[in-house]
Amino acid sequence: MSVLPDVFTDPEDSKLVADAKKDKPEDFKFSYTERDVILYNLGIGATAKDLQWTYENHEEFAALPTFGVIPQFAAGIPLGWLPNFNPAKLLHGEQYLSIKGPIPTEGNFINETRLLEVLDKGKAASVTTIVYTKDVATGKVIFENQVTVFIRGAGGFGGKRSGRDRGAATAANIPPRRQPDAVIEEKTSPSQAALYRLSGDYNPLHIDPSFAAIGGFDQPILHGLCFMGIAGKHILQSFGAYKDIKVRFTGVVFPGETLVTEMWKTGRKVIFSTKTKERGTSVLAAAAVTLVDTDIMAKL
Amino acid sequence: MSVLPDVFTDPEDSKLVADAKKDKPEDFKFSYTERDVILYNLGIGATAKDLQWTYENHEEFAALPTFGVIPQFAAGIPLGWLPNFNPAKLLHGEQYLSIKGPIPTEGNFINETRLLEVLDKGKAASVTTIVYTKDVATGKVIFENQVTVFIRGAGGFGGKRSGRDRGAATAANIPPRRQPDAVIEEKTSPSQAALYRLSGDYNPLHIDPSFAAIGGFDQPILHGLCFMGIAGKHILQSFGAYKDIKVRFTGVVFPGETLVTEMWKTGRKVIFSTKTKERGTSVLAAAAVTLVDTDIMAKL
Repeated sequence: MSVLPDVFTDPEDSKLVADAKKDKPEDFKFSYTERDVILYNLGIGATAKDLQWTYENHEEFAALPTFGVIPQFAAGIPLGWLPNFNPAKLLHGEQYLSIKGPIPTEGNFINETRLLEVLDKGKAASVTTIVYTKDVATGKVIFENQVTVFIRGAGGFGGKRSGRDRGAATAANIPPRRQPDAVIEEKTSPSQAALYRLSGDYNPLHIDPSFAAIGGFDQPILHGLCFMGIAGKHILQSFGAYKDIKVRFTGVVFPGETLVTEMWKTGRKVIFSTKTKERGTSVLAAAAVTLVDTDIMAKL
Repeated sequence: MSVLPDVFTDPEDSKLVADAKKDKPEDFKFSYTERDVILYNLGIGATAKDLQWTYENHEEFAALPTFGVIPQFAAGIPLGWLPNFNPAKLLHGEQYLSIKGPIPTEGNFINETRLLEVLDKGKAASVTTIVYTKDVATGKVIFENQVTVFIRGAGGFGGKRSGRDRGAATAANIPPRRQPDAVIEEKTSPSQAALYRLSGDYNPLHIDPSFAAIGGFDQPILHGLCFMGIAGKHILQSFGAYKDIKVRFTGVVFPGETLVTEMWKTGRKVIFSTKTKERGTSVLAAAAVTLVDTDIMAKL
C-alpha cells in the first residue's frame, strides 16, 4: 500500500524530467536489531557513559534521532536517465530527516522512494529524492528523508533552475548575529569512519587511502551522515528531542578531527553550524532542527 | 555427522560426572558476515590503519585469529547438574583455541559441544568443555575451543582432583628468566567493552555499573576474551601467524586501561603474559601460542 503519490508532478518540469519522475523505484526492505542501533550510536560517538544509547537493557534505551537516515540509506536513487551522469562526480548536498513517531529499537521496514525535484544548475544537476520509511508492524510512516545530491557536469539538460519552498526541508537557516546559545566540541576517533561504515555505507572513499587519493583527498574522509549524526547528538544533548533536522554539507571532515557545533535557539528551532577545530572549515551550514513541543507531547 | 566422540569417558570420573558427560548438548548453529569480522577486529583494537582487518576489499582482509572463539561463544555449557551450581559464582578460568585451517571471512557454521573434564577442587568445581566449530560449506572443523570455568562453592561432589595433560591446552607456559623478546603496549578505549560486546557477549557485567557493583567491581570490566584477543593481536604483530593460543585469566581489566603484553619466543612457541600498566596487575598468565611453521606451510 503506497503512502507516497506515484509521481511528484511539476508543470515547470521538462519532458525529460517529467518522464524520469514516472519511473517508480521498487520498494526497499530493511530490518534492524538492537545491536544495529547500538552500533550506529557508537558510530556517531556515543560512549559507554551514554548507557541510554549503548546498553539495550537501559530503561531509556534508544536510537539517536539521526538513526532515521539508516533504513533508507541503500534505497536506490534513480539517476541513470540524467545526460552525462557520472557517479564519481556525485556529491551529497543536503539531507532532511523528519521523525514522525517514536523510533523502534528493532523491526522490519519498507522504504518508498520517488524523484521529488530535479534542478538544472547549468554546469551541475541537483536531484532531490524523497523516501518514506514505513514500519511493517504498524503500517505507519516513521521517517521521511529528502536527499539532495549534486552531479557535476550533468547540467544543461533544459530543466528548471530554482526549487520550491518545502518548509523546514529547504529553509536557509541563517544563524542570528549573536554569540551561540550552546557550543559542543567533540574529537572524533581516527577509526570513526571504519566503525560508522558498518551501519551501511561501505563506500571505499571513507577507508581506503588509495581510493580517497583518486577522489583528490590526502586521506579517507568521514561520512557526511556520520558528522551530521554527531552534530545531531550535540543538539539533543543541549536542547532535547527534535522532530526534524536539515543540513547542507559544506566541507569534508578527516577522521580524528575535532568537530565544533555552534547552536542558536530561535523559538522552536535550533539553528546550528559545525566546523572542524583544526582547520576552521565549515562542514555543516544552513542547518536546523525543529524541537519537539514537549508541552503538547505531554497532553497527548 | 558428529566429529566429536559422544562421550569423553574417564575411568576416574565419579558416577555423577560420568552421567553428566552422557548428556549430549544440541549442536549450535552460527553464521557470520564480513561485517561481523570487522566489528570483532575493531572490538579488539584494530584501527583504520590496519586495513587488512578493517576493510573487506583489502587483498589480505582477514579475521584476527582469536575470532575463533566467537562462533562457539553462545554454545551452551551444561552445568545445571552440578550440586550447588550458581551462575553468579562462575569465573572464566582458561581458554584454549586451536585454529585448524584458514578462517573464512563469512559463512555458516555448526558447533558441537561436549563435557571434556570435570575437577573437584574442594571448594570450587572446574569444568572444561570442548567445542568443535565446523564450516557447513566444507564440512571441515576450523576451530577447536576448550573452555574452562571455575564455579565457586560448587566443589565437594566427590570428583577427581587433577586433570590430564592435554598438551598445549594445559601447558604451564612459564616464561624464561630473561628479558622478553618483544613488548607491546596498547591503551584500550573507555568504550572498548561497549563495542566488543556486539560480537556476542552481552553480559551486563561489562557495561552496567550497577550490575558490576553487585559483582563487587567499582566499574564494569572488560571481557576476558576481549583482552585475550588484544594480546593475541600483539603476538601476531610481533611474531606472525599461530595455530593455537592458550591463556589463563588472572585478573580484571577496566576499559580505558593500558595492556602490556610481554613475549618470549622459545622454539615454535611464544610464551606471553599480559598486565595492566596502570595497576601492574597480571591479567593473562600461563599463556602461549604455537607459531605456524611457515617453512612447512610453504611446501604444502
